Amino acid sequence: MCMFVPGLAKLWRAVLYHFMPFKKQSTETDPLNCPFQQLLVSKAELKALCDYYFDGKGKAFRPMIVILMARACNVHSNKEGVLLPAQRSIAMISEMIHTASLVHDDVIDDSDTRRGKNTINKVWGERKAILAGDFILSAASMALARIGSNTVVSVLSQVIEDLVRGEFMQLGSKENENERFKHYLEKTFKKTASLIANSCKAVSILVNSDPEVHEIAYQYGRNVGIAFQLVDDILDFTSSANLLGKPSAADLKLGLATGPVLFACQQFPELHAMIMRCFSSDGDVDQAWQYVLKSDGVEQTNYLAQHYCQEAIRQISRLQPSTERDALIQLTELVLRRDK
Amino acid sequence: MCMFVPGLAKLWRAVLYHFMPFKKQSTETDPLNCPFQQLLVSKAELKALCDYYFDGKGKAFRPMIVILMARACNVHSNKEGVLLPAQRSIAMISEMIHTASLVHDDVIDDSDTRRGKNTINKVWGERKAILAGDFILSAASMALARIGSNTVVSVLSQVIEDLVRGEFMQLGSKENENERFKHYLEKTFKKTASLIANSCKAVSILVNSDPEVHEIAYQYGRNVGIAFQLVDDILDFTSSANLLGKPSAADLKLGLATGPVLFACQQFPELHAMIMRCFSSDGDVDQAWQYVLKSDGVEQTNYLAQHYCQEAIRQISRLQPSTERDALIQLTELVLRRDK
Repeated sequence: MCMFVPGLAKLWRAVLYHFMPFKKQSTETDPLNCPFQQLLVSKAELKALCDYYFDGKGKAFRPMIVILMARACNVHSNKEGVLLPAQRSIAMISEMIHTASLVHDDVIDDSDTRRGKNTINKVWGERKAILAGDFILSAASMALARIGSNTVVSVLSQVIEDLVRGEFMQLGSKENENERFKHYLEKTFKKTASLIANSCKAVSILVNSDPEVHEIAYQYGRNVGIAFQLVDDILDFTSSANLLGKPSAADLKLGLATGPVLFACQQFPELHAMIMRCFSSDGDVDQAWQYVLKSDGVEQTNYLAQHYCQEAIRQISRLQPSTERDALIQLTELVLRRDK
Repeated sequence: MCMFVPGLAKLWRAVLYHFMPFKKQSTETDPLNCPFQQLLVSKAELKALCDYYFDGKGKAFRPMIVILMARACNVHSNKEGVLLPAQRSIAMISEMIHTASLVHDDVIDDSDTRRGKNTINKVWGERKAILAGDFILSAASMALARIGSNTVVSVLSQVIEDLVRGEFMQLGSKENENERFKHYLEKTFKKTASLIANSCKAVSILVNSDPEVHEIAYQYGRNVGIAFQLVDDILDFTSSANLLGKPSAADLKLGLATGPVLFACQQFPELHAMIMRCFSSDGDVDQAWQYVLKSDGVEQTNYLAQHYCQEAIRQISRLQPSTERDALIQLTELVLRRDK
């Protein structure tokens, strides 16, 4: 995490400590505890592809939430301080599903860079990238099967369907403005929040039989997940993190109208035609960007993200007090304040 | 099936009858019995993509074997004449996994046609084809989860890993001739036979607790599956089923050395260099083809396929007698004699 939030740094180290599977030096042999590198072990090249993004340099945002949620739920079942091996597996599986979807997304979008590296499709080519995504997904499915809970398998299978449906929604656009916003938020849920929501639900199911706790876990994940993606969409307009020191506006270039543009369109109806033609005419991308900067689209998207974080806090506050519950509350700040 | 084998036609109709989910008119509501069209139900375009190959015109070779194997195994558990809903699901899931892999394979190979139709990647483009494959796979995973057997989930998860590993093996080639043949057969197992073997094993597990029966089911599927692919590799050189009335030699064009070429290379060492450069020089494809025709590569590959079918028969003969067991024995003839 690049954004330092007092108190969270210590917690983050603690989370990482309990999340040993992400570290290469792990030598555990319990299949539920084995690191990515073991799950994905393979012939040299396939291994190189699959390890490529599991280099310990990612934010590991999903595993962090899942581990914290697991511990917060465990308090409800008198298992304070305990992390079940199956819950740790869910944290890994969530990151694997996420990574597999990134690998396929990058092929679909023909992207060049990801996490400061060249993408797998650029280094190894499209065919191997498609296969690497399939392989990471199948390794995740196998790890999921080993957990041995049918309910949990169902819950996480839904995520993959949502990821695909979300991607398909992204390929279409709506004429009507209200529908367009609804469509954007539904797509955001499916593409980003479903994985977090259902992973949170899964770790709750694994320790707890109370459906109310599962629902709290799910709703926290859903709301934080949507907020996370809204901030992501803002950063595409505001982050100066890339090599040129300029925001990338990658979404506009891909023809996608995200929160900041949709809000800007309410002030500048000129954007409507550009949105409908997916910013495909000469100069559309630059012009749309200018409109977004002139508008309060970024501010309003941020306001919406805050709203989702508040709802996430309201939900998680219904759990019994614990260090991890409080960390999940603090984590919403991290989501809103992150700059990459 | 285009090849008529006396006695089998009636059986085939019986199998289809018991395999109602493949027919569109099915109105069953049991989730284990719902047809592909319901499992894959979705927004219009995603639905169109996913239904594209489930048009009832495929050979449905995998479901046929799986249903027969299920019934043959059920005899061992005093369930003669019964087909468990979960076993029927495995038959559907096997065809779904197969179809998903075809969809991704066609993107990877940039193929134009499949089953006499334009491929999904040609009709809808690469990005949607990648997503459609992911989606069919996730629908299969969900159907698998609904069966509720962890062992069966594990067994079929292995298939997806094998499919990917097999595809990766196909991208590489071996210098040494013996290693090359071993590599080819291992690839053939992973790309084709693993799905059939593990689906057979799964339906056996679902009704039977005897590991010996599971192993027989698996070994039958493994051997028939390898034979099926060997015949497929022969047909690429001999079938006149395409529009030009000429064999396609698609594998050579993709740079792949299959059985007939590998055997031909034993007679004509000139093929070695061409195999190593994946038939990439001008004239390689035509020249290799001529060598194959001059050699007894096709005959020897066919002989090898017969050998695998004999082993399949030896295995399945260890089951108690039943109409379905005998049908599985007869089916090996169909595998060897098919012409498309």
